[in-house]
Amino acid sequence: MNSIGRLFRLTTFGESHGDSIGGILDGCPAGLSLDFELIQSELDRRKPGQSTITTERKESDVVKFRSGIFEGKTTGASIGFSIVNSNQNSKDYSHLKDSYRPSHSDFTYSKKYGLRDYRGGGRSSARETANWVVAGAIAKQLLSQVKINAYVSSVGPVFIDKNYSELDFSKIENNTVRCPDEATAQKMIELIESIKSEGDTVGGVISCVVQNAGVGLGEPIFNKLHANLGHALLSINAVKGVEFGSGFCASEMRGSEHNDLFNTDGTTKTNRSGGIQGGISNGMDIYFRVAFKPASTIMQSQQSINNSGQEIALDAKGRHDPCVVPRAVPIVEAMTAMVLADFYLLNRTSKL
Amino acid sequence: MNSIGRLFRLTTFGESHGDSIGGILDGCPAGLSLDFELIQSELDRRKPGQSTITTERKESDVVKFRSGIFEGKTTGASIGFSIVNSNQNSKDYSHLKDSYRPSHSDFTYSKKYGLRDYRGGGRSSARETANWVVAGAIAKQLLSQVKINAYVSSVGPVFIDKNYSELDFSKIENNTVRCPDEATAQKMIELIESIKSEGDTVGGVISCVVQNAGVGLGEPIFNKLHANLGHALLSINAVKGVEFGSGFCASEMRGSEHNDLFNTDGTTKTNRSGGIQGGISNGMDIYFRVAFKPASTIMQSQQSINNSGQEIALDAKGRHDPCVVPRAVPIVEAMTAMVLADFYLLNRTSKL
Amino acid sequence: MNSIGRLFRLTTFGESHGDSIGGILDGCPAGLSLDFELIQSELDRRKPGQSTITTERKESDVVKFRSGIFEGKTTGASIGFSIVNSNQNSKDYSHLKDSYRPSHSDFTYSKKYGLRDYRGGGRSSARETANWVVAGAIAKQLLSQVKINAYVSSVGPVFIDKNYSELDFSKIENNTVRCPDEATAQKMIELIESIKSEGDTVGGVISCVVQNAGVGLGEPIFNKLHANLGHALLSINAVKGVEFGSGFCASEMRGSEHNDLFNTDGTTKTNRSGGIQGGISNGMDIYFRVAFKPASTIMQSQQSINNSGQEIALDAKGRHDPCVVPRAVPIVEAMTAMVLADFYLLNRTSKL
Amino acid sequence: MNSIGRLFRLTTFGESHGDSIGGILDGCPAGLSLDFELIQSELDRRKPGQSTITTERKESDVVKFRSGIFEGKTTGASIGFSIVNSNQNSKDYSHLKDSYRPSHSDFTYSKKYGLRDYRGGGRSSARETANWVVAGAIAKQLLSQVKINAYVSSVGPVFIDKNYSELDFSKIENNTVRCPDEATAQKMIELIESIKSEGDTVGGVISCVVQNAGVGLGEPIFNKLHANLGHALLSINAVKGVEFGSGFCASEMRGSEHNDLFNTDGTTKTNRSGGIQGGISNGMDIYFRVAFKPASTIMQSQQSINNSGQEIALDAKGRHDPCVVPRAVPIVEAMTAMVLADFYLLNRTSKL
Repeated sequence: MNSIGRLFRLTTFGESHGDSIGGILDGCPAGLSLDFELIQSELDRRKPGQSTITTERKESDVVKFRSGIFEGKTTGASIGFSIVNSNQNSKDYSHLKDSYRPSHSDFTYSKKYGLRDYRGGGRSSARETANWVVAGAIAKQLLSQVKINAYVSSVGPVFIDKNYSELDFSKIENNTVRCPDEATAQKMIELIESIKSEGDTVGGVISCVVQNAGVGLGEPIFNKLHANLGHALLSINAVKGVEFGSGFCASEMRGSEHNDLFNTDGTTKTNRSGGIQGGISNGMDIYFRVAFKPASTIMQSQQSINNSGQEIALDAKGRHDPCVVPRAVPIVEAMTAMVLADFYLLNRTSKL
Repeated sequence: MNSIGRLFRLTTFGESHGDSIGGILDGCPAGLSLDFELIQSELDRRKPGQSTITTERKESDVVKFRSGIFEGKTTGASIGFSIVNSNQNSKDYSHLKDSYRPSHSDFTYSKKYGLRDYRGGGRSSARETANWVVAGAIAKQLLSQVKINAYVSSVGPVFIDKNYSELDFSKIENNTVRCPDEATAQKMIELIESIKSEGDTVGGVISCVVQNAGVGLGEPIFNKLHANLGHALLSINAVKGVEFGSGFCASEMRGSEHNDLFNTDGTTKTNRSGGIQGGISNGMDIYFRVAFKPASTIMQSQQSINNSGQEIALDAKGRHDPCVVPRAVPIVEAMTAMVLADFYLLNRTSKL
Repeated sequence: MNSIGRLFRLTTFGESHGDSIGGILDGCPAGLSLDFELIQSELDRRKPGQSTITTERKESDVVKFRSGIFEGKTTGASIGFSIVNSNQNSKDYSHLKDSYRPSHSDFTYSKKYGLRDYRGGGRSSARETANWVVAGAIAKQLLSQVKINAYVSSVGPVFIDKNYSELDFSKIENNTVRCPDEATAQKMIELIESIKSEGDTVGGVISCVVQNAGVGLGEPIFNKLHANLGHALLSINAVKGVEFGSGFCASEMRGSEHNDLFNTDGTTKTNRSGGIQGGISNGMDIYFRVAFKPASTIMQSQQSINNSGQEIALDAKGRHDPCVVPRAVPIVEAMTAMVLADFYLLNRTSKL
Repeated sequence: MNSIGRLFRLTTFGESHGDSIGGILDGCPAGLSLDFELIQSELDRRKPGQSTITTERKESDVVKFRSGIFEGKTTGASIGFSIVNSNQNSKDYSHLKDSYRPSHSDFTYSKKYGLRDYRGGGRSSARETANWVVAGAIAKQLLSQVKINAYVSSVGPVFIDKNYSELDFSKIENNTVRCPDEATAQKMIELIESIKSEGDTVGGVISCVVQNAGVGLGEPIFNKLHANLGHALLSINAVKGVEFGSGFCASEMRGSEHNDLFNTDGTTKTNRSGGIQGGISNGMDIYFRVAFKPASTIMQSQQSINNSGQEIALDAKGRHDPCVVPRAVPIVEAMTAMVLADFYLLNRTSKL
């Protein structure tokens, strides 16, 4: 359904071309002083039209809070919020009424529900992720001591050839692609611009490092920290895979080289686990990688079918991202923050 | 907590060295005739001591059902079951009482809960997965028309160099490593035996293909089919990553090569999506890969610490798997079946 | 938290003096054609200022839907809606900033959360119930064949001295107190007007009869139909008790007189069970009674305390209901409809 | 489904004539030293065959814990437990295979599920409540400072004509009917014995008083303390109604007499609210009343129908309770304790 989280719980609504999107954040503890500028700045990191390598579509994406906050502080009541869809234009999509776009949800939604809001992807639009960024920005403030840094580590075949420990996270926002390695960033930007000029799209990978999360977040068995993070991250549009710590590389390793040996203070000499042991944070950096496919909407003519099973030619219209990965950086952070906030609260009930 | 699923919901209990493990399966529809031999055969696929490449520890793993079944059929009541721990011997573990084994949950459990059942990993033991196999075997019967085939596609650096469509799934059980490509299987077995002789362990990858699941499984936004599958798969001990369809490779591709174009019958010419569009099954094969790290318990002396922060030397005892991947094949299938069963029931409520 | 229902699930937000209240209805099946006038008419039945026996406060209570509906039909996406608080005036409440009103939530909210939105009761205001009426009106349309009739059966000591089967439910809306027995209704109205003139309030009882719900709604053990109805009804502001079928009278009866004997068609000769056996609807009329305390806000001076523990004199301001029961009739119906809708969907998964 | 509670969560299984019943208690904090004798003594209070006024059926009802406890303390892992059905004899029930007993769940279960475990009521049997008593006894230990006293306040027309504050709760266990007023207790016992001799049954009321629960338990809107208590109490077999504090009497009162005025220490001069304001405990005694119908199984011949719709004559067999209320006292306490424990944990997350 449309909720995520057990205690720190977000429920959302909204289609790309309805009058607004929004959500209800439940379970945020009372007494949290909110920095509204920080929330808006996170939304600005996600919004379209930021740079030459994102869609040129402009959306102001101003969040308005409706409840749960009094004199600048959370009250313990549910926090309602909404974001007006200022730029919707339903006429843009009338040509899609009967068409199924390749690698979109048009076909599956139509079959599952028997009807479909065909305007701009409807509920399946990544516009929804703006809601997540709002809730994530509140989660970040609840977890003020935790540092969450996501960045673009690859675009197509261009990748950062360094361990995260060699990177300066303060440089992530220095370029439009959100890659902290400046030389690689320039190559990524050039690649995206080139692909954009061809009317094509390209995928990429976002890496994320969480520092200072402490020991004890996550629950044994079915709510392991990485399982719930994986669930949240795989909910992001276009994500095709996640890996934690050593990830897929671990499958090629031996135990004697993979095991993280302890220092006497309980830290570990290596961190192949990615900061999680037995599903619970161990105080080391939590890190993981998230793979994004290239966006399905391309500015090229494609063959497709309509809902009568007839072949049609699809010509894309509108303004779309040639690479969604730079704008997905704050989304990855938001999902991470929400999962951590949920476990932070749950962990208050672990011991007598 | 210790439950998974929304409608088809499993809740479990049990430590490796308690008297038994077990679970309660809630929400299984009434009227399902159960094949108990099939359930037991799934448990037998998972149990230790099957072959020269698994642990030599013998566990009979006989499931006993306690409720919810009458005259061979499910009644709609919750299905209680348990499996006796026939082989536990708590003395084996007294040397671990104060020790933290590297890359185990000893440290995190102790810190989170303030105490720890140190016998054989306690709740964190993979013995728990026998419960999942029981519930998964029931899910498979509920979804009798769906075919779920998992297999070992790599062990350490040895991998099957073929697309799944070139494999004959009927050969998966023909060898002890559960690899349907016989030549590769032999190399895997040799590698595992070699690593075992060194007292070491090795990781691997399990691939899984789901056929005939139909259109409509999965929910938009936070319960996408692959997000819930990812959650379930990342709950399996030692799993470090998952990828669906094109997975991490998608990050290097362009939209024009990644998009799956439609045939006029609604099937697609390619299946890079892995059978899921917009979080919902589209009727094509669902496929994904699951990465396992090498098991942490190795038969080599390791430096570690105790709960006073003193350095200690750890010498492993007991009988352990040099490679957990072959025995994890039925576990991957079980988790997959449970997630599909849950969405199958939920999908009954999608339309008027 | 702020959600109710398992499949047909409402999550709400809003304080009486925020800019709006609203909710997200999740799980409503796709394809339901909504009658928006019916939804608004239900809101109008609940709104203040309807008559001489309710508060004179005027609130227009117009619901605006934000999502989940396309071309008049539900799409399967979450349905977001909101209702503007047109009449809020925060100055009215500044005198309550530090005061705890007797038998309100001021004291408990302040202690639980450490702070409180003191404007008009904040989250604890019965204004929230307008959200429920919206969701309930959709539930009623989902269950179009089911008839839900609630009515006022007593106000203070004045009660209808008849079995519900002797009443004509079509007369419920014929008078302002929503009592289908006209003679009793007049006495109730006179009593309320008299109490209003004294600046006092009075309690009452609402009875509710559900017809044509069919057999099979409700789940064994912890989600019995009457347990979930009880939960929903006790969530309504001012409710102090509920009873189903024979209710408290059953405690004085013998089994031989209480048992409902069967007719050969499966109906029962009597219906002391109130249409529920073993927690599951049996096809007979479901009926129950809901007790409301007198509203706590009275137009009389009361002694109270402030948050420093000092005695104060409280003089009520504003316009309040002398008897909340007539306006609670649509709320009781809405909660009933939501619970039934939830079980209606859940029941689709009971059998193979 | 078969779970109750959000954080302190019990899931159960078992039919009256299966080999055992049991449950999994999830979310109990780690580090709680369990008094197993206390748990067993609570079970003994519930078990059949205690006295001349209960069923003569003997069941030993010994609980065996399977997990989640190590060296006498909870570990934070799920607590599995079971109770063997020592006395089942399926032959006793073969005559009920095709019959629907009046005011039992035979008819509704059969229609809902398409089949039914007809042995002794199957899942609908009150034997299930033994599971609740186990979990409740653990909840009581978690809430060691809270005092929960339930007692029988009426049997048929015989009732205690005193306020609870005039009673000495230490006398509750002094007689077999669990009524702390000795003179009334004797009348109740005589009534039950008389009714038993006629082969009939009788209903009654259980009152419950919770002391020292503190301020802050319960959540606004849909998880009000009394709403969740009501849900739990209405889950108990044979319960037809609940009322909190002033209850149904409140419906006849005026606000000026019903309001609880404050003392300067935040306590109230009266306690008509029953210790709950706005759904949250206010530190005063929580009290409520629970109405039980007479048990449906009577030792008299009754007319009924079979599953072919034919009239049959039913003659009851076996040994049954003439009045279930005395044995339900520990069940009411157990449900109360579980709800309080759940809110106690949840309340840890209310404030920053």
